[in-house]
Amino acid sequence: MESSHHTVANCIFCKIMAGEIPSHKVYEDAETFAILDIKPIQPGHTLVLPKDHFENIYTVPAETWARMHLIAQKLALVVKEVVNADGINIQVNNEVAAGQEIMHSHIHIIPRHNDDGLAHWPGKVTDQAELEKIREKMKEELART
Amino acid sequence: MESSHHTVANCIFCKIMAGEIPSHKVYEDAETFAILDIKPIQPGHTLVLPKDHFENIYTVPAETWARMHLIAQKLALVVKEVVNADGINIQVNNEVAAGQEIMHSHIHIIPRHNDDGLAHWPGKVTDQAELEKIREKMKEELART
Repeated sequence: MESSHHTVANCIFCKIMAGEIPSHKVYEDAETFAILDIKPIQPGHTLVLPKDHFENIYTVPAETWARMHLIAQKLALVVKEVVNADGINIQVNNEVAAGQEIMHSHIHIIPRHNDDGLAHWPGKVTDQAELEKIREKMKEELART
Repeated sequence: MESSHHTVANCIFCKIMAGEIPSHKVYEDAETFAILDIKPIQPGHTLVLPKDHFENIYTVPAETWARMHLIAQKLALVVKEVVNADGINIQVNNEVAAGQEIMHSHIHIIPRHNDDGLAHWPGKVTDQAELEKIREKMKEELART
């Protein structure tokens, strides 16, 4: 049966959804698919992906982006319950510089436990003037779009 | 003027949105607010928050959750443009164990640059059988909800 979804030939996620590569599927509906990460940061680490191939946050249509996050919200509770997590990180990496490894947009649901040793990136104390400069540029850019 | 939004007395984000604490606001609409993180991981680090006070992904209403992510999607492009980022991380920390510091749900938009030195948590090679066990539990939990 021909897929009605936009797929890309060499995409590992498109192949998984087409059944050409095995996966640990936890959820599927007409537009969305969820699998366990094969190399979990923590047990229960789950990925939510759109069936249509879109590369990242810049190109995923708004409706698809919202749908992905609504499914991730539902699955976050399921993950929390199943691995008895103390917290959940939701993460989307866009582009290689941000750690994206598979160029088909996906949401990471990462269960966390107290004292699991995973450190977050530190924030830096920053000059108010520098913040204002960036804020001004963002307001200008927003006004243009 | 009385706010029509659900606020919580000691919440720093509720106070910011009420104008009681200054902030570097980059966006506002009827339901959503966005500010620069005062201690940015990288310049341009932006936070998207709902005007109503909800603690985390488990309690944010679906409609609000979708709206927050749609605004984050728009702002991600603006941030990328303004700081000339090579990538963007979208992150939501839920509960203290996951690094949540302010108990009013918010999305982090974190601009990234090639070789910025921020390391991602490593995935672990995992037994197929362990993955299947978790998958089974998630399917059961999903069937219940």
